Amino acid sequence: MSILAVGSVAFDSIATAYGRVEDVLGGSATYFALAASYFADVRLVAVVGEDFGAEQEKVFKTRGVDIRGIERAQGKTFRWGGQYHDNNLNEAKTDFTELNVFERFQPRIPEQYLDSEFLFLGNIHPSLQAAVRLELDNVRLTGGDTMNYWINRTREELLETLKVMNVLLINDTEAKMLANETSLPRAARKVLAMGPQALVIKHGEYGATIFFREGAFGIGSHPFRAPALPIEEVKDPTGAGDAFAGGFMGYIASQGQLNREVLKRALFYGGVMGSFAVERFGTERLQSLKRAEIDGRFQVFRELTHLE
Amino acid sequence: MSILAVGSVAFDSIATAYGRVEDVLGGSATYFALAASYFADVRLVAVVGEDFGAEQEKVFKTRGVDIRGIERAQGKTFRWGGQYHDNNLNEAKTDFTELNVFERFQPRIPEQYLDSEFLFLGNIHPSLQAAVRLELDNVRLTGGDTMNYWINRTREELLETLKVMNVLLINDTEAKMLANETSLPRAARKVLAMGPQALVIKHGEYGATIFFREGAFGIGSHPFRAPALPIEEVKDPTGAGDAFAGGFMGYIASQGQLNREVLKRALFYGGVMGSFAVERFGTERLQSLKRAEIDGRFQVFRELTHLE
Repeated sequence: MSILAVGSVAFDSIATAYGRVEDVLGGSATYFALAASYFADVRLVAVVGEDFGAEQEKVFKTRGVDIRGIERAQGKTFRWGGQYHDNNLNEAKTDFTELNVFERFQPRIPEQYLDSEFLFLGNIHPSLQAAVRLELDNVRLTGGDTMNYWINRTREELLETLKVMNVLLINDTEAKMLANETSLPRAARKVLAMGPQALVIKHGEYGATIFFREGAFGIGSHPFRAPALPIEEVKDPTGAGDAFAGGFMGYIASQGQLNREVLKRALFYGGVMGSFAVERFGTERLQSLKRAEIDGRFQVFRELTHLE
Repeated sequence: MSILAVGSVAFDSIATAYGRVEDVLGGSATYFALAASYFADVRLVAVVGEDFGAEQEKVFKTRGVDIRGIERAQGKTFRWGGQYHDNNLNEAKTDFTELNVFERFQPRIPEQYLDSEFLFLGNIHPSLQAAVRLELDNVRLTGGDTMNYWINRTREELLETLKVMNVLLINDTEAKMLANETSLPRAARKVLAMGPQALVIKHGEYGATIFFREGAFGIGSHPFRAPALPIEEVKDPTGAGDAFAGGFMGYIASQGQLNREVLKRALFYGGVMGSFAVERFGTERLQSLKRAEIDGRFQVFRELTHLE
């Protein structure tokens, strides 16, 4: 099955307690696509500048990611710089954000992508997210992300977009902000009433919980929780949430059917891909995994929470 | 099997978004004892004042808790007042602390308690914790708690006490403070090097993780994580951690053998008892549970994380 992913491709400059890197390939769609590529065919819609070249293309092509939907625009690629402090690996301190060509991003979907059955709407303006969804006729499941910026500044548009998302993947802070609610389970219920059939709340080092709307997927409404691996050396947390989304959506796309068990396992695979992402700077670890490593770690996650 | 528990018995005044109560029975040993009483015989060592009467005694006696070790001293019982704000249910804002008779607490162990096989050292001065442990010859497993106050002010004494604890149960903040380390898995490794064979880190609404010292209990060193229930209405978080410890230690004491599977299930039962504790103010919910309710919720916890 094919997943179409739309979002940002960027050059990141990152500093953590373990070192620093400059202008490495990043962006939410990049992390998503690389993580999902181990499970399904991935098609990317994004925009880059003239500084995006063969070296970056090769990263995607090596993983079989279809980049015919990456538009080359005049100017420079989106650049982001940030640092993580040891006492808060869940949140980056942003040094700079240069939107560059991303500022005027208008997703254009190549004709060859129009039969995509799975769609991931990365963290872009909610109206652009909705427009992409409306162009596709064969989509069976739409996952999406958003962030504080859109929740606060484009709330009305976001509420419209949530009506066409099947699964929203956000973190604790975003869920509470979106629902204007301090209790996470109550926030989840409110968000599900906005449209999505399922809500994945990513808890960082504590894992993730999926909440289901009553009757969604015919699977009842009780939630499910997957762990995260206690990792001693988180080299670089950048992209962990996007890699999580890639593992989650990728696994779903690989299964062909949508039921509670598939979504539960998808939540585990999300955690697995997030745990790999943070082991090296940038996308390095996601570029050269083996499927056996992924399945091995899936078993580790299982043993982390399973009673006999 | 019998568990001897030493700690505080108190009168609490608590305010949350759901209401307020005054002078209700509380204290770490109280929550621990009530939670553990569903699994094993519990013997309590604590001190109360002249204001502790038949009404309070009845709460313990109804649950079969042996309170011959509760000493009556001249003066008033320990009193604590605090409030929880909806945006941080994990931490109380203390309104007042009146130590009263607890200030000069010197645990005295009744002769009938000396054959206790399981011991829980509640959150008191580490030197008192160690003294209790040294009086008992038949203990197979010692669990214990501590807090920021002791970590900061009586570090040397605490380090000595940790050498006689088999399992330390603390929260994320305490673990990081004790280890002077911001990464939780690294903090866990450092704390285990201080003495305990196992470290339970309680994550509040995200559950708990147990870390094992290499070779401890002959069960390898990989950690295990149990979830917490996403509860929409946390009426009163007071005592959740103590109820967790009670469920954890109680289940262990009920099993007779110490192996990885028992400790894993104990972690689940800890979460179960903590989840009941917060459903009502004070100890109300822990006073009148049925074992079938406990096992029912254990299954809910299991379904919350188990893949087929």
